[in-house]
Amino acid sequence: MFKILKTSKKSRARLGKLKLAHGAVQTPFFMPIATKASVKTLDSADILNLGAEIILSNTYHLLLRPGMEVMKKAGGLHKFMNWGGAILTDSGGYQIFSLAKQRKITEDGAIFRSHIDGRQFTLTPELALEIQKNLGSDIAMILDVCAPYPASRKVVEEAVRLTTSWAMRSKKIKNKNQLMFGIVQGGVHKDLRLKSAEELVDLNFDGYAVGGLAVGEPRAKMFKILEDVVPELPEEKPHYLMGVGQPEEIVEAVRRGIDMFDCVLPTRNARHGLIYIFKEKTGNFRPGYAGFYETLHITNEKFKKDFSPLDKNCSCPTCKNYSRAYLRHLFIANEPLAARLATIHNVHFYLELMRKIRSAIRAGKF
Amino acid sequence: MFKILKTSKKSRARLGKLKLAHGAVQTPFFMPIATKASVKTLDSADILNLGAEIILSNTYHLLLRPGMEVMKKAGGLHKFMNWGGAILTDSGGYQIFSLAKQRKITEDGAIFRSHIDGRQFTLTPELALEIQKNLGSDIAMILDVCAPYPASRKVVEEAVRLTTSWAMRSKKIKNKNQLMFGIVQGGVHKDLRLKSAEELVDLNFDGYAVGGLAVGEPRAKMFKILEDVVPELPEEKPHYLMGVGQPEEIVEAVRRGIDMFDCVLPTRNARHGLIYIFKEKTGNFRPGYAGFYETLHITNEKFKKDFSPLDKNCSCPTCKNYSRAYLRHLFIANEPLAARLATIHNVHFYLELMRKIRSAIRAGKF
Repeated sequence: MFKILKTSKKSRARLGKLKLAHGAVQTPFFMPIATKASVKTLDSADILNLGAEIILSNTYHLLLRPGMEVMKKAGGLHKFMNWGGAILTDSGGYQIFSLAKQRKITEDGAIFRSHIDGRQFTLTPELALEIQKNLGSDIAMILDVCAPYPASRKVVEEAVRLTTSWAMRSKKIKNKNQLMFGIVQGGVHKDLRLKSAEELVDLNFDGYAVGGLAVGEPRAKMFKILEDVVPELPEEKPHYLMGVGQPEEIVEAVRRGIDMFDCVLPTRNARHGLIYIFKEKTGNFRPGYAGFYETLHITNEKFKKDFSPLDKNCSCPTCKNYSRAYLRHLFIANEPLAARLATIHNVHFYLELMRKIRSAIRAGKF
Repeated sequence: MFKILKTSKKSRARLGKLKLAHGAVQTPFFMPIATKASVKTLDSADILNLGAEIILSNTYHLLLRPGMEVMKKAGGLHKFMNWGGAILTDSGGYQIFSLAKQRKITEDGAIFRSHIDGRQFTLTPELALEIQKNLGSDIAMILDVCAPYPASRKVVEEAVRLTTSWAMRSKKIKNKNQLMFGIVQGGVHKDLRLKSAEELVDLNFDGYAVGGLAVGEPRAKMFKILEDVVPELPEEKPHYLMGVGQPEEIVEAVRRGIDMFDCVLPTRNARHGLIYIFKEKTGNFRPGYAGFYETLHITNEKFKKDFSPLDKNCSCPTCKNYSRAYLRHLFIANEPLAARLATIHNVHFYLELMRKIRSAIRAGKF
């Protein structure tokens, strides 16, 4: 299932291959986010052309729209969006915490109202897995309780307790051709994180996520938690840091033993004209260094007559075919193509970042 | 330059080839509209893949944004948007009439304020051609005066007079590698239309457009004007009906001797989820018949679980890869991919319509 091909001598970074129902995926990897069954502005052919091997989609959003009746009838998410690669679906835990209205967490599950139309839903750990069975994703996440930041210790304690309780119930279910990952909670409290990790490891999941991070805590705290938690997770299983992050955060997390990432930054920033550019041809991933890339605001006046590509060393379709001046014009003129061309570039940047990271690990230079 | 390959025996329809600086274009043809240097949601590679040989772009919009300094420095519109096919640019006359604020038409030209930021511009016939020279389009349109509908006879008379006067000034200019088309005005008045046509024909343009139609007049009046005007235009030159129209209007206009079309309908309707579908495999283009196609509102509830393509006989990328249910979901969920997939289909439909029309003329079945 998960094969580690190489481990870094100077850090916890590892190069691996994760075999999934829809193909093997090289680790560490980044999953572009197809929240509502589409990576915003891109279709499945685009995602394939960009070289993504796995994407992430959201149980919460798909439950609301188009709803499970449609997804079931479609024969799952792969068929619905015509995507042949792998898919990880989150459980909805984070969205219930961040998006849903009037949420109430009980021992049984989460009762909440849709942020779209106020319809009431109840999501239990069992239902979250049944939905993900219908979606037919390659990796399902268990339903967890994600405490906000900041939160009182008591709130975080309860989140950890319920997450473990729900994890135990989740383990009674086995969906065919689908891996099931546990999610470590515990906020910024080391002892709670270790407790959560220990309890979940005892349940023997196929992989482990670190959840509830990048929710507002200082970056240093996030890294510290990874340093505390990752060594407690089984080495031979994939480690997933949910919702992270900026390029240098990904590098630092890989260094701390993380294999899997997802984040809205490349796609969301693209829609606002924020472009990621590598400053160095080969990645220099030394600790604490973020100088390997920069960002530019393409709507800036200075790009008005800049007919060079976003990045002259980039091989993405946007850089191969269009100039900064053209992209700036499209943004200024509110042309929908603007978001698309920027998204193509930024997603390519993140996938390329992961390729560079993997190369560096392979070459023993991470 | 323009070669007529076949004429219909039962109508004025003709099949031809128009040689332009960026390649030969088969007539009758339809030009997808790249108002602001992008066919909304599509990039140049998409347009090429859809088989378009020529697109239309707007002098008025490009003058406002990104402005002529940028367009000049870019080396023209082809380079700016990386489009290797042909381009026709309109003169801005229609946009000044329909979009600009506080417009004032003088003998010299049009003074108006931008609909975006209120900046004042003066556009003369000479400047309109200089701009189009900088844009480097294959076909430039002369600056004309487009009377509204309804309008008093006096207003239309003055529009015709000024259009001819500006046409005479335009003829003194010769842009290299660029054809120049005159635009027949005259509203719904037969005598004014004939006067306008006669005066413009005397000036010997490379082609002739019928302008000022599809601005609100009844459809029968539009056809009547074509029946009056087209026989007065040189047979050996291309005839262009500006801004038209619905599929059956295009068919009827081809029957009346029109070779060139542009219209926002396929792209604008796509963004609102209105989809064009052929009802018959081979086009039946008998007079007055619109039954060869239908439209569907993809957001309709009935498509919720319809996993068939928009049109099972369609070879466009949208129909080859995605279902009605998926497209409906994308529209309902406000996903930007919705407009793109619908645009790809609708533009393909219009280009396919022209292919069917050309086949029918070629086969003597039009």
